[in-house]
Amino acid sequence: MARRSARAEQVSATREAILTAAERLFAEHGVYAVSNRQVSEAAGQGNNAAVGYHFGTKADLVRAVARRHAEAIETLRERALEAAGDSTDVRDWVDCLVRPVTEHLAGLGSPTWYARFCAQVMTDPALHEIMVEESMASPALRRAIEALNRVLPELPPEVRAERGQMVRLLILHTCAERERALAEGTPTPRSTWADAAGGLADAIVGLWLAPVGHGAH
Amino acid sequence: MARRSARAEQVSATREAILTAAERLFAEHGVYAVSNRQVSEAAGQGNNAAVGYHFGTKADLVRAVARRHAEAIETLRERALEAAGDSTDVRDWVDCLVRPVTEHLAGLGSPTWYARFCAQVMTDPALHEIMVEESMASPALRRAIEALNRVLPELPPEVRAERGQMVRLLILHTCAERERALAEGTPTPRSTWADAAGGLADAIVGLWLAPVGHGAH
Repeated sequence: MARRSARAEQVSATREAILTAAERLFAEHGVYAVSNRQVSEAAGQGNNAAVGYHFGTKADLVRAVARRHAEAIETLRERALEAAGDSTDVRDWVDCLVRPVTEHLAGLGSPTWYARFCAQVMTDPALHEIMVEESMASPALRRAIEALNRVLPELPPEVRAERGQMVRLLILHTCAERERALAEGTPTPRSTWADAAGGLADAIVGLWLAPVGHGAH
Repeated sequence: MARRSARAEQVSATREAILTAAERLFAEHGVYAVSNRQVSEAAGQGNNAAVGYHFGTKADLVRAVARRHAEAIETLRERALEAAGDSTDVRDWVDCLVRPVTEHLAGLGSPTWYARFCAQVMTDPALHEIMVEESMASPALRRAIEALNRVLPELPPEVRAERGQMVRLLILHTCAERERALAEGTPTPRSTWADAAGGLADAIVGLWLAPVGHGAH
């Protein structure tokens, strides 16, 4: 038993090293610019086929990296939902969308790679679906969106749908741009992830509550 | 002279065929998943080195595709600026940001590939800078942003900067998502690019005019 457990621990450490290397290399050089062989090497694996052995194809590896932070973000979002209680303030539910992501990124220390990785996967024609599936797999995210929909003013269904999509894109790509700027040492409008979250939530509340068809041409 | 001109025309047609093939293949399969050889073949070039000969590296080709629609969008934006005149309505200047893009995409017929291509390049670590440089090279875009800044209410500089970035991301990625849905035949919230532009502009006006620090936690 002790021997089997030691082997399991070793496998787990190898998988973790591969995911860490993949996330970083993908974010810094591009998901398709990096080979499984390069990931194996960067993860300190003598065997260049380690990625294939532990994860399968490039798409399988991408899914594993995407899933990697999901549990931590889910836990933060459950806590945020609990704190929001039965609030009727749109802002509280927008915070449940934004803050679990920014708090998780802040908690990882600097630099992070996850947001840039997610933004790339989201815009990639072959990998896009993975990201959509993974984000829809979060019960806490669905609960946050349902709660938000309950407190939003009446909106035509197409407006609700398009704004929901805009908000998802805005959170993802704004975090990725901030992460890139932090990694490259270029100036960012806000000094902390918490302040960036505040600015993002302000903007999203404005977007959700915007009058419809104000100046239709 | 006539002979030289025929040769120039042939070169121009070859370059155009390569750009058309590259834009489509990049949008449908990913910029890095597609080789210069595949682009040459799809462009009907017997010589597999045609891309290299006419455009150089992958990055050079990406820049040429990115630049391809710039002139048409610039012309539409100049017209929009003229129509907006000296308006003090935020919506009119937001329209100058949004509509030249959606009108150009609408004018290309369906499907289009350009928006998905741009979204990919924007999130790619190696190619990102190309997209930023190309969009900053537009005088009409700069004039639209300056005009918008004149009519916006007083905002702290960091809020103005972060909202400007959010608006750029929102226009780019919302158009790319809509283009993807149209190409794949999945439902879209709005039936036309003009309606989508209206929904996007409504949301952007709300985002720009959102109260600052409403619910800071």
